[in-house]
Amino acid sequence: MIEIAIMGHGVVGSGVAKIITGHKKRLFNNVGEEIYIKRILDLREFPDSPLADRFTKDFDLILNDVEIRVVAEVMGGIHPAYDYTKALLKAGKSVVTSNKELVAAKGAELLEIARANNVNYLFEASVGGGIPIIRPMNQCLVANDVSEISGILNGTTNFILTKMFDDGMDFDSALKLAQQLGYAERNPAADIEGHDACRKICILASLATGKHVYPKNIYTEGITRITNRDVLYAEKAGCVIKLIGNAKLLDNGMLDIYVAPMLIGKDGPLANIKGVFNGIVVNGDCTDEVMFYGKGAGSMPTASAVVADIVDSCHHLKQRRFLFWADSNNENILPHSESRTAVYLRIDSPEALPEVEKLFGEVEVIVESDELAVITGEFTVCEIYGKIDELEKSGYKVLSSIRVEAK
Amino acid sequence: MIEIAIMGHGVVGSGVAKIITGHKKRLFNNVGEEIYIKRILDLREFPDSPLADRFTKDFDLILNDVEIRVVAEVMGGIHPAYDYTKALLKAGKSVVTSNKELVAAKGAELLEIARANNVNYLFEASVGGGIPIIRPMNQCLVANDVSEISGILNGTTNFILTKMFDDGMDFDSALKLAQQLGYAERNPAADIEGHDACRKICILASLATGKHVYPKNIYTEGITRITNRDVLYAEKAGCVIKLIGNAKLLDNGMLDIYVAPMLIGKDGPLANIKGVFNGIVVNGDCTDEVMFYGKGAGSMPTASAVVADIVDSCHHLKQRRFLFWADSNNENILPHSESRTAVYLRIDSPEALPEVEKLFGEVEVIVESDELAVITGEFTVCEIYGKIDELEKSGYKVLSSIRVEAK
Repeated sequence: MIEIAIMGHGVVGSGVAKIITGHKKRLFNNVGEEIYIKRILDLREFPDSPLADRFTKDFDLILNDVEIRVVAEVMGGIHPAYDYTKALLKAGKSVVTSNKELVAAKGAELLEIARANNVNYLFEASVGGGIPIIRPMNQCLVANDVSEISGILNGTTNFILTKMFDDGMDFDSALKLAQQLGYAERNPAADIEGHDACRKICILASLATGKHVYPKNIYTEGITRITNRDVLYAEKAGCVIKLIGNAKLLDNGMLDIYVAPMLIGKDGPLANIKGVFNGIVVNGDCTDEVMFYGKGAGSMPTASAVVADIVDSCHHLKQRRFLFWADSNNENILPHSESRTAVYLRIDSPEALPEVEKLFGEVEVIVESDELAVITGEFTVCEIYGKIDELEKSGYKVLSSIRVEAK
Repeated sequence: MIEIAIMGHGVVGSGVAKIITGHKKRLFNNVGEEIYIKRILDLREFPDSPLADRFTKDFDLILNDVEIRVVAEVMGGIHPAYDYTKALLKAGKSVVTSNKELVAAKGAELLEIARANNVNYLFEASVGGGIPIIRPMNQCLVANDVSEISGILNGTTNFILTKMFDDGMDFDSALKLAQQLGYAERNPAADIEGHDACRKICILASLATGKHVYPKNIYTEGITRITNRDVLYAEKAGCVIKLIGNAKLLDNGMLDIYVAPMLIGKDGPLANIKGVFNGIVVNGDCTDEVMFYGKGAGSMPTASAVVADIVDSCHHLKQRRFLFWADSNNENILPHSESRTAVYLRIDSPEALPEVEKLFGEVEVIVESDELAVITGEFTVCEIYGKIDELEKSGYKVLSSIRVEAK
């Protein structure tokens, strides 16, 4: 019998408890021993739970119990999860987590503490919910130099964008619907402003490069400014708009990483990912494009990934899994102003075209009606800002500017 | 330093050697020791290879070398790979392979020998080339009861079908093109008749159910009878035709497993997988649909998966990875005649419709011209054969019958 604890009994934590009690035999067959939930840490009471006798509000009961070898941290947030995780790893317990905020903010430090204490810190559930991605990247693609990771990493925003494209809804109505369906929180900022996606692309980029990429250094743009006009024009250009987290290793060793809405061609692998689904494309030098697709959130999918890490920890109580990245000052992150991209521009008058062509050279004209919509060639973000400034000085207004995926 | 051997220096084997020598530092950082290729077994001579001094024609030099701990078997075929693998596992060496034919035919026996000798037998490369699928299914989805696996598992046939759909080519021309491009062998039977896909769905089903599913017991139909008319009519029905390997666990515990061309709706995740790409959808009770997508064949993608298994074996020289299925008499395989499906029928005359409706009840009429094309409701394969017989007794000829994906 291997004794474990679960910290947090919310959406994910209750799913973890449900899987471990409900799939007891399947897990026994794999691990060779029973996985026994000894403690569940939560400040709330759950008198009707079949595990009611295991609940505690006292973290020390878990920390000081030498028989508890593996702890699932599914509380979310930085505090107190960070202090708890540190203490548990130092006490020789393996910790597995779905807490992307913590992994993105403190991963390097926690991985180092895990290494020093010869235990595991695993976080399959922190990216892509139930989609296997951390372990495949870390193990199956180990032979690859990863040149680019590009993903739809947030189901809420993808649901909203799908509703805008497929059902013609406007942003506010689609957000409201997402809230009604439980896909978006009452305060949806972390999703719609791109912060959630940013944490995830940072985790994947840290894994691929071996150096911690901190979210605070990453350009992050959400989808709140996408309008129905943009949707219409994107379709005319044969594209959809997706919120993309992208990390690309440039030839000079710099990492071009950002989260932004992007126009992507309808035939690309990410274009057909709809609703709350996530998709992550990893480009390795041996494998070329590999894609992982599935439900990126939700109680059971995310809990499924947490349990996979619990099982892996049980298999490796005496041996560390190789999952590591070093701390970094992020000197290798390309300043966003130097990031190169083609850009979709929506301008308030079709008469702007000559001025646009003067500034951007040849452009693809998508719409020339009461407005002008074009796709330019590739420039640095800095150059694009400068040219937009010039254009606005000529009296035109740029209503939207959205990155366009390289062909 | 961990010493390894590679058996076979063909398409995959030469890729393995190339990755291990070319990505030496990356692999050292992961394993903590150098992976050193001590021997390469091949009957041919490679005097110009930078590894020319490592080649041997003598298997015993590998078998009897106690310093060689891990062997990559990338020879293909059953003999002598089977005998070699058995001998190596019994000698306490871990074996990793891309040999789907051997894993599908002898997996249970070889996994048992590996278990008895406390070594690993790993085969990530046997399904989906460079796409991570075996390890994700085995580890990341460990908490799931897998209810269904459905995949495009053969790149050659998917290339041919893509050319038929997107470029209007006929089967023979598309096959010839695939051969010219090196995607199909001179003798393409294993691909176009579905045997390659069958081995792969058997491996995945064995992994999901824990019981060896033998290819010889599985209904396998290739794509040689798909005509341009079928392509045209499928498009009219909003579908594409894909060669699908499917394994579905029924409520009664039986496994409905087959390889067959199928009409699938254009919006489904597998419909947009084109050319030589593979895609595998795994349906777990916790995760729902998860899809894996990428290049299913080729030297470097497949070698990448072999190297991942070599690395995993190096991490686990003293511990077995949990990857196992038991032998089975396949009593749990549903007889194909009892498999239920809707079916697309192409019949030589539009006048057959009343008779078709008499036999099949309400049908969806796709085409009524010089021919009749319909999609029926669900029946067992046995019932469908019976009704087709009846129809032909009435003087009509059924020109095509193709399974249709359940809506």
